[in-house]
Amino acid sequence: MRLHLILFGFLLPFIGIEAQSQTTSTGFSIIPLGVKGGLDEANLSSYMLAAKGSNNYICLDAGTIHAGLQKAVATKLFTETSAEEVQKNNIKAYFISHAHLDHVAGLILNSPNDVAKNIFGFTSVIEILKNNYFTAKSWANFGSEGDKPILNKYTYNYLTPGKEIEVAQTELKVTPYILSHVNPYESSAFLVRNNNSYLLYLGDTGADVVEKSTQLNLLWKAVADKVVAKTLKAIFIEVSFNNAMPDKSLYGHLTPRLLLQEMKELNKLSNGQLPNVPIYITHIKPCATCEASIKKELAVGNTEGLTIKYVEQGKAIER
Amino acid sequence: MRLHLILFGFLLPFIGIEAQSQTTSTGFSIIPLGVKGGLDEANLSSYMLAAKGSNNYICLDAGTIHAGLQKAVATKLFTETSAEEVQKNNIKAYFISHAHLDHVAGLILNSPNDVAKNIFGFTSVIEILKNNYFTAKSWANFGSEGDKPILNKYTYNYLTPGKEIEVAQTELKVTPYILSHVNPYESSAFLVRNNNSYLLYLGDTGADVVEKSTQLNLLWKAVADKVVAKTLKAIFIEVSFNNAMPDKSLYGHLTPRLLLQEMKELNKLSNGQLPNVPIYITHIKPCATCEASIKKELAVGNTEGLTIKYVEQGKAIER
Repeated sequence: MRLHLILFGFLLPFIGIEAQSQTTSTGFSIIPLGVKGGLDEANLSSYMLAAKGSNNYICLDAGTIHAGLQKAVATKLFTETSAEEVQKNNIKAYFISHAHLDHVAGLILNSPNDVAKNIFGFTSVIEILKNNYFTAKSWANFGSEGDKPILNKYTYNYLTPGKEIEVAQTELKVTPYILSHVNPYESSAFLVRNNNSYLLYLGDTGADVVEKSTQLNLLWKAVADKVVAKTLKAIFIEVSFNNAMPDKSLYGHLTPRLLLQEMKELNKLSNGQLPNVPIYITHIKPCATCEASIKKELAVGNTEGLTIKYVEQGKAIER
Repeated sequence: MRLHLILFGFLLPFIGIEAQSQTTSTGFSIIPLGVKGGLDEANLSSYMLAAKGSNNYICLDAGTIHAGLQKAVATKLFTETSAEEVQKNNIKAYFISHAHLDHVAGLILNSPNDVAKNIFGFTSVIEILKNNYFTAKSWANFGSEGDKPILNKYTYNYLTPGKEIEVAQTELKVTPYILSHVNPYESSAFLVRNNNSYLLYLGDTGADVVEKSTQLNLLWKAVADKVVAKTLKAIFIEVSFNNAMPDKSLYGHLTPRLLLQEMKELNKLSNGQLPNVPIYITHIKPCATCEASIKKELAVGNTEGLTIKYVEQGKAIER
C-alpha cells in the first residue's frame, strides 16, 4: 500500500498517463496460500490472484488461508504484518471451484475473523456451503442464505457457466466453466481476466476420457484463441497422482499421463503455441515419493515441449 | 514399539510380574497435536492420549492431525517416521467433544489415508458428522451410517452421559459428560481412566453462570472425589478469551475470570485439594496480545494456588 501512495504522489504531474496505464494494465500476481492435494491441514489448495501491481486480490479456493498468509507475511509479500489483516483487507472475494473440505476449510475456519465479502460459485458449490458448512449446527451461518440465524457476512453469488462477471473492488473479471470431478460431481475452472490478459485456474478435475465427459475439451476450445494471441499468461491445473494410479482409483483427478494428453489436445487447438504458456502443477497428493515421481513422469512425457512449472506455498508468481 | 518388544523379551522370565504391573499401571501420556482455539489451520484442538508407556492412543478432538503429527514425528516422539504411519497405527479411536470444524477438520481431511477405527461421541455430535461432513456431496461418507455409498471406515459409537465405555485396542476407559456451549448446543467432557488414574478433558464450554446451566457443576461433583483421592492426574480445560470479552460475546467459552470461578467451585467440592492437580489451559483464540493477557490474568487471579499450565503443539506431557 505504502509503495502505491508514494508512486501516486510522484506521478501526480503525469496523472493522465497513470490513469491510462491503469486501464490497459496486464498480467497478474499470484500468491499460493496452499498447494497440496490433501492431508497437510497447513497447505491445502488456495491461490490469491490480483491484477499485477494491485492489492485487490481474489482467492481461488480456500483450503488453507491463515497458515499460508503467515508464510507470505513472514517473507514480506505484504506491508501488513499479520495474516488476519491481509485476509480482511486484501482478499476481496472467494471463488470456490467445489466444496470438498480441502478447498474450503480455511475459509470456514477463519470466517469468524473475516469481514463482509462475496463468495462466488456454481449452484452446486453454494448449496454445499449453505447446507453443510455454514449452518448453525456445524459452525455458524456466516452466509447470506440458509439456516437461521443468518449472519450475512458472506454474500453468495451464483455463477453461470461461460458468463463473465466483474469482481467488485478488484480489477478482475471472471468466466467460470464446469469441470467433471467424478462424473456427475461438478468442479469449476475460472478464466480470470485483467483487461486483455488472462489466467486459467482449474479446480480438481478428471480427464475427459476417464470421466466420459467433454468439459475439458469445451474449456480448451474456449481458451485456445488466447493461447494463440499470447494473452493467456498461465494455466494452473492439478496432477494429484502419479502414473501408477489406475484410472478406476483416480476419483476425478489427473496423472502426468492424463495431463499431458489433455495439454496435447489444447496445443493442437492452439496451433502448437501452448509451449509459450507456463503450466503450473497444483494439488499433488502427498506421499513419500509422489512429488518426485510426478515431476519425473511429467519431464519424461513432455514431448510437446511444454513449460511445466511448480507452485510453492507463500512464494509469489508474477505473470 | 521397538522398546516394548525389547522390554518384553528382557522380561520374559518375569512374565507374571510384567502382567501384574500392566494391569495396575497408572498415569497417562498426552501429545497435543493442536492447541489453538481457531484461525491457524495447522494448530487446532486435538490431543493424543494413552496409558503411560502404551502406544495405543485415543485422539480427543481432531482439529489438526497431520500438521501436529509432523511436529511430533520431527521431535522423535514416535519410532514411526511419518505422520501418516502414526495416525494409522497409533490412534485407535477418536473422541469428538463437538462437531465444530475446528475440532474435526483434521479427522475429515486425513480420512482418505486413515484406516478403519471407531469414532465416539454423543448423538448430537455424530449426527453432524453424518449429515454435514461425511456425506457424498461435501466429501465422501467414510462413516458407518448416512449417505450412500457408505464406505464404513469409521464406526460411529453413540455415547451415553455418565456411562463408562471401554476403548478397544487400548488400556483406556472413558466416561463422557455433557457440556453447554451456547445453551442448548452440546459439547462434551471426557473423563479418561487408566486403571485407578484419571484424566479430565473438556471440549469447548461456557461457564454455568453465563450458560444458565448446571453441566459444569455436575461434572465437578463427578470428579471431586478423584481430586481428593489424588487419582485425577490432570484437567485440560479451555480459556478462549481474555477478561476484556463481555459475557454476551463469549459464545460458549471461558475467560480467566470464569475459569477461576469454576475451579474455585471444584476446589471447594474437593476439600481444597485441587492445587495438586495440574490444570492445562487449551483453546486460546489467537490474537496479537491474547495469549499474554490470558496468562497474566490467570496468574493474577489465581488466589486458590492452583497449578496452571499451558500446552504446546507436539510437546509430550507425562502425568
